[in-house]
Amino acid sequence: MAPLACSVLVTGSNRGIGLELVQQLAETTDPPEHIFATCRNPAGSQGKALRELADKHPTIHVVQLDVKDPSSLKAAVSVVESHLNGKGLNLLINNAGVAIYGSLETMEQEEMLSVFNTNVVGPTLVVKEFLPLLKKAARESATEGMSCGKAAIINLTSRLGSIGRGFEFEGPPVYSYRVTKAALNMATACMASELQSEGVLCTALHPGWVKTDMGTAEAPLTVECSVRGILRVLANLSSLETGAFLDWEGNHFPW
Amino acid sequence: MAPLACSVLVTGSNRGIGLELVQQLAETTDPPEHIFATCRNPAGSQGKALRELADKHPTIHVVQLDVKDPSSLKAAVSVVESHLNGKGLNLLINNAGVAIYGSLETMEQEEMLSVFNTNVVGPTLVVKEFLPLLKKAARESATEGMSCGKAAIINLTSRLGSIGRGFEFEGPPVYSYRVTKAALNMATACMASELQSEGVLCTALHPGWVKTDMGTAEAPLTVECSVRGILRVLANLSSLETGAFLDWEGNHFPW
Repeated sequence: MAPLACSVLVTGSNRGIGLELVQQLAETTDPPEHIFATCRNPAGSQGKALRELADKHPTIHVVQLDVKDPSSLKAAVSVVESHLNGKGLNLLINNAGVAIYGSLETMEQEEMLSVFNTNVVGPTLVVKEFLPLLKKAARESATEGMSCGKAAIINLTSRLGSIGRGFEFEGPPVYSYRVTKAALNMATACMASELQSEGVLCTALHPGWVKTDMGTAEAPLTVECSVRGILRVLANLSSLETGAFLDWEGNHFPW
Repeated sequence: MAPLACSVLVTGSNRGIGLELVQQLAETTDPPEHIFATCRNPAGSQGKALRELADKHPTIHVVQLDVKDPSSLKAAVSVVESHLNGKGLNLLINNAGVAIYGSLETMEQEEMLSVFNTNVVGPTLVVKEFLPLLKKAARESATEGMSCGKAAIINLTSRLGSIGRGFEFEGPPVYSYRVTKAALNMATACMASELQSEGVLCTALHPGWVKTDMGTAEAPLTVECSVRGILRVLANLSSLETGAFLDWEGNHFPW
């Protein structure tokens, strides 16, 4: 089996879905040449599991990156560039995100701004800074059309961010999470529209309701199962799915 | 003709659509008893047209309100309460908003946070602070169902914030405007869901592409014509349109 992509970058990869993405990518029979596993504080206790995983797989490069900090972003681009050694970056997975419980009536200004900063501004800045490397990968690819093996941006969103169907799902109120995931969906559509002519695929993906720190133990789906599904979906993406909103099984979701 | 509502509050009412809403509401044959026309700086040169309009119509109360400033919001609620004299507020129109030109590639962190603060956090805080007065109006109304005459929140959004159809419309890139208007659409859907049982109607409304400072002279629609349409749509809203996305002619828009 050909690798999903020669180079992949995953944000928020020290735990949950991000960590599992890095692990499954590294442990596949034909892994990417470079897996850039980024997180805010790789040296701290929260980075332990990622460091241990990277010790076992030389293909994994652990890179410090806080999506809210433009200077850390620029430093991360330099590190990634040095490893790529003149090549482009094929696949960027914006996985880092936060969820805060709260309703309209309990919402505070600073909290909403902070959630938007992490869930929407962060992915925007990550894409903006890595765009030259993504465009390079698209330009230098020998394949036609669009794919994750060529050049792609995957934004991990949530079905709770679907304005059309998101209210079918019960749970505690998550006003700022819904609002920022809908905003991220629009950001994905804007990216798809703006990068269509450059050959960079952009898709919003709902990973399912997953047993992670964010999803809680109540969630029906294991992180292994969700990530297996996500990687299967990514392997089959084409220009038909740029600007689309899919779930981990490849089903289309309404905005 | 019965008034659209006994009391109406319009944010950003010193110019453009906001000013025209206040004017047409005041000059109708049966005007609301109270029109609260809010803006950031009513005493400054930007507030001149509103002050002159208010001088002609005692039903207009000019109120200082910066949607980004929680303390100015609390002060505005006190002023409005003192005029309402124990009654609730029927209709809240979140009109204040900003648009900044720019693409994904030119986007800056501070700019995106600032646009989100005005276009999404602002309307959220305005609703949160005025909610006791809106709920009071709903509770004390003798009419069944939902309407602008009973208790309603109207969020002025844009067709450019429609993820499904917003890319059909040409123009310069407005990444942060699209992202924040999609977020405001989700905020409206959350408000509709959360306030359904309280009898407060919540609708997202696209005013058309209007000849204002924001819409530019290129726009096909005069502000008079847009606002006439908006007021006609508002007069006919019912519980069928809570959580909906409509335009100034009453057409439904996809998210």
